Amino acid sequence: MSIQVTGITGIPLIKTGDDIAKILCEKTAFEDGDIVCIASTIVSKANGYLRALKDIEPSEDAVRISGLTKEDPRFIQGILDSSKDIIIEYPFILSEVPCGHVGVRAGVDNSNVEGENIIILPKDPMGDAAKLRDQIKAASGKDVGVIITDTCGRAFRRGQCGTAIGWAGMTAIRDFRGDHDLFGLELEITEEAVVDEIAAFSNFIMGE
Amino acid sequence: MSIQVTGITGIPLIKTGDDIAKILCEKTAFEDGDIVCIASTIVSKANGYLRALKDIEPSEDAVRISGLTKEDPRFIQGILDSSKDIIIEYPFILSEVPCGHVGVRAGVDNSNVEGENIIILPKDPMGDAAKLRDQIKAASGKDVGVIITDTCGRAFRRGQCGTAIGWAGMTAIRDFRGDHDLFGLELEITEEAVVDEIAAFSNFIMGE
Repeated sequence: MSIQVTGITGIPLIKTGDDIAKILCEKTAFEDGDIVCIASTIVSKANGYLRALKDIEPSEDAVRISGLTKEDPRFIQGILDSSKDIIIEYPFILSEVPCGHVGVRAGVDNSNVEGENIIILPKDPMGDAAKLRDQIKAASGKDVGVIITDTCGRAFRRGQCGTAIGWAGMTAIRDFRGDHDLFGLELEITEEAVVDEIAAFSNFIMGE
Repeated sequence: MSIQVTGITGIPLIKTGDDIAKILCEKTAFEDGDIVCIASTIVSKANGYLRALKDIEPSEDAVRISGLTKEDPRFIQGILDSSKDIIIEYPFILSEVPCGHVGVRAGVDNSNVEGENIIILPKDPMGDAAKLRDQIKAASGKDVGVIITDTCGRAFRRGQCGTAIGWAGMTAIRDFRGDHDLFGLELEITEEAVVDEIAAFSNFIMGE
């Protein structure tokens, strides 16, 4: 198997309301079967998943946690608002977001966003991926897979990796359970998270 | 950036004593700057990092844990022998191996290995990667990076991904700390584990 992995260059700074599918189709010629990886930041900006810090009123909990983490209590409140379950509060907030993804700071970010705003993870990344796939089909006529990626830390390992938070038009897991290995022994526990393996490498191509 | 990722095909079943570098160089024409990802299983087999179950005497601890996990107590003993610190015993053993890697069952595996043997992770994967890099240089004249990969589970996520356990001739972490984002804000915490992002995608190309 040989795969060409190409970064799409010349993407402008994305603003709320931008048509990402149209922009992508102008910058690259998709082929059927391509997989398009797109950073969640881009999806969030285009969809307006942003909040102005000045509009956020920190709760008592947010103020308490900000005393531990030394972060802006309004930023902490944004994280709490994006979380359905807080797993760790300190040294960083680790929480589960409504779509089931578990991440540091609920994926809320203040990097690469203009002004005193925070950027929120797409609330329905599976839906956003499906929508983007349909829009690329409409704009280019091509049938592509779409992965929405986020950069996430990992337990027990230094550094962050690209991870899939939403996908459409492809399988997430390659399931080897019940298959047999080279010597006929049944593989009992292998489920390969191919969607994350592809997201990881796309993050390497993207940079931060 | 555009990168061609190619699986090396036609690798025979590896036996103890096989010269992996020679086999790889026969199957592919390396270029300077290539990165070669190789499954730890291959490295372990070539180096004879195997143990026969019949030669393993399970300790009291191994028998106790095997009562919980329902695995062969000799297999459990192999895991304990490969671990320097046990983090979780059940529902699966999670442990740290001497090189610092944390993994399920200490990376000990009975898949894709002939007969009643278990396969052990390379004890010095950084050293093995460096050796392989030198041998490829000697055999082909080309300067390549080498990553030794293992397939690992992740906390909070379904399925396993390729992960780097040893590498040579390349950086493991792309460090963005102190850099600035698109709007001039200093990036405080981003260290990208590029070695794992590449290992992940190579695992996708390899299959299991």
